[in-house]
Amino acid sequence: MPTSIRYVGDLPTPSLLVDLDRLDANITTMAARWPGTSLRPHVKAFKSTALAARLAANGHTGFCCATVKEITGMARAGLGTDLLLANEVVDPVRLAVLAALVDGGARITVAVDSDFTVAAVADAGLSDVLIDVNVGLPRCGCPMEVAGPLADLARSRGLTVRGVMGYEGHLMGVDDRAARTAGTQKSMSVLSAAHGSVGGEVVSGGGTGTWDCNDVITELQAGSYTLMDTYYRKLNLPFTPALSVLGTVVSTNPQGYAVADVGLKALGMDHGDPTITAAAVWFCSDEHITYAPEATPPTLPRIGDRVEVWPAHVDPTVAYHEHFSVIRRNDPAAPIDDAEVVDEWPIDLRGW
Amino acid sequence: MPTSIRYVGDLPTPSLLVDLDRLDANITTMAARWPGTSLRPHVKAFKSTALAARLAANGHTGFCCATVKEITGMARAGLGTDLLLANEVVDPVRLAVLAALVDGGARITVAVDSDFTVAAVADAGLSDVLIDVNVGLPRCGCPMEVAGPLADLARSRGLTVRGVMGYEGHLMGVDDRAARTAGTQKSMSVLSAAHGSVGGEVVSGGGTGTWDCNDVITELQAGSYTLMDTYYRKLNLPFTPALSVLGTVVSTNPQGYAVADVGLKALGMDHGDPTITAAAVWFCSDEHITYAPEATPPTLPRIGDRVEVWPAHVDPTVAYHEHFSVIRRNDPAAPIDDAEVVDEWPIDLRGW
Repeated sequence: MPTSIRYVGDLPTPSLLVDLDRLDANITTMAARWPGTSLRPHVKAFKSTALAARLAANGHTGFCCATVKEITGMARAGLGTDLLLANEVVDPVRLAVLAALVDGGARITVAVDSDFTVAAVADAGLSDVLIDVNVGLPRCGCPMEVAGPLADLARSRGLTVRGVMGYEGHLMGVDDRAARTAGTQKSMSVLSAAHGSVGGEVVSGGGTGTWDCNDVITELQAGSYTLMDTYYRKLNLPFTPALSVLGTVVSTNPQGYAVADVGLKALGMDHGDPTITAAAVWFCSDEHITYAPEATPPTLPRIGDRVEVWPAHVDPTVAYHEHFSVIRRNDPAAPIDDAEVVDEWPIDLRGW
Repeated sequence: MPTSIRYVGDLPTPSLLVDLDRLDANITTMAARWPGTSLRPHVKAFKSTALAARLAANGHTGFCCATVKEITGMARAGLGTDLLLANEVVDPVRLAVLAALVDGGARITVAVDSDFTVAAVADAGLSDVLIDVNVGLPRCGCPMEVAGPLADLARSRGLTVRGVMGYEGHLMGVDDRAARTAGTQKSMSVLSAAHGSVGGEVVSGGGTGTWDCNDVITELQAGSYTLMDTYYRKLNLPFTPALSVLGTVVSTNPQGYAVADVGLKALGMDHGDPTITAAAVWFCSDEHITYAPEATPPTLPRIGDRVEVWPAHVDPTVAYHEHFSVIRRNDPAAPIDDAEVVDEWPIDLRGW
């Protein structure tokens, strides 16, 4: 971080901000229910070994990853105590990279859901797997009734089957908590049945949306709770938005709108437009956000003013940026420019 | 590019593919209507100096950029003959970088749409500006009646006003060509009126969607036509999709769907889901796309098969990737794995 940057007002825009106090509060809240290795933080949400190290320092030393790049970066950063690749990989070159990391001392467990993936993992010389079971989300995961035979196949190939995983991703965005809980129980009954035929000590699943309605798993795979976004915010979870994109107003129009330099290349857009406090967001273009203040009468910001934009989806937002600017709002009522920049964390696990 | 990569089958996934023959065909088609410097290719669409150099070699030596990073990268790559920053920038540090590049021999013109931006550009020691006029898209651009006074102010600050620009972005996606043309004429009448009061030789505007219905401008700002996407494809333009994301099938399900490793972190999602030929795309997750073949009866791909995913929006898709793999389909009927990889172009203009 350049030494000239001490306050948010010194940052160029767009910049990705992490509010350190809010992040720490989210970590604490989650750890009260899922302490230590009962939480397996999902690295895909933040893609940063610096943020992961903060979680490890809090006792969460086992991590979940979605890509080989995330696994390799974590292992090379000394965070390879217990890494789960919660995804199917069939590329022998990349699986060989994982095997080399295991030889170097990392523990890496890989999800498998087919004869093909079992063979690929065994051929690469890896040893630890989880049987990935479909629990309702139409994505990876074998049918429940195949889980046992697949575990047998894996063991016959010399693999250690640590247990099962199943991700109830189709329930993460269900607004009503009772419905979310009921759906999760149904999904987890599938996972439990699969676990009965697979064996092993691990039952891995869940996410931020089901953090408090999943009692079956032995470990929770949650990542978004650290930073939060508007998608999860509507669930009224006890986690606080800690991630924003800082922008600068570059144009205003007498018709009552302003334009800032936070566009859709600085934001994950699959969950829709981001939000701006006390304003209606009209739309995002590549490098712009057009929005109208909601005050009556509308009071336009001045050109050069800073604005915080709150992403609708953490994961793909983070993946566009090279680093987090870590900030502290010493006075929450003060303009964002006055917040202190206390650190810069590289987003070093991007790509594949 | 590693020498071991000669065919698409050798590439890891996800990989961003550019079909060189289709790209060249698109360049040729556009150059027939907008030859030489009457086309000002928009770098934001492809963010690659290698692709820009191919356009420059075809006579398009003036370029359009959306960010200071794009401008600086182009200038440093020797492509700074005539760069237009078609965007408002108020950051004095970044404007100083542009001024230094001008001192180094680049020609850089900056859009201004307010007293504030005129002052910022003049204070930075830059000299060339265009007056950015709002022609209907609620984004940057001054009201038409302000354009003349703003040009006067700019000249009073010692700036050279080269003319006007106005982007009819609200019309790019209008399906009906007649409606698109009528809308463009209306927008361009605004720009013409502004030009009358501003003066200068340049009237810059347009884009891929209005490439053949804009007769007012002296130069067209188009970028997407080079690579194309499903959003523009619905307009039945004579440009061919040249950009795809290569994926690998990692899981299949007997319920009739497959999962490949091209997720929403490899795709711009603001225009919706991508497409897969002869398949229905169900949804994208961070690292996955779930899709069902449309054949009757459905024939699932095999795990390990490759699949091409066609993005809905070029610009934010490109911004997620580190390079293009440049390919030639010597036999268009052959599987994608057999296509030749002829080059690798860094996407070196990402970020800000």
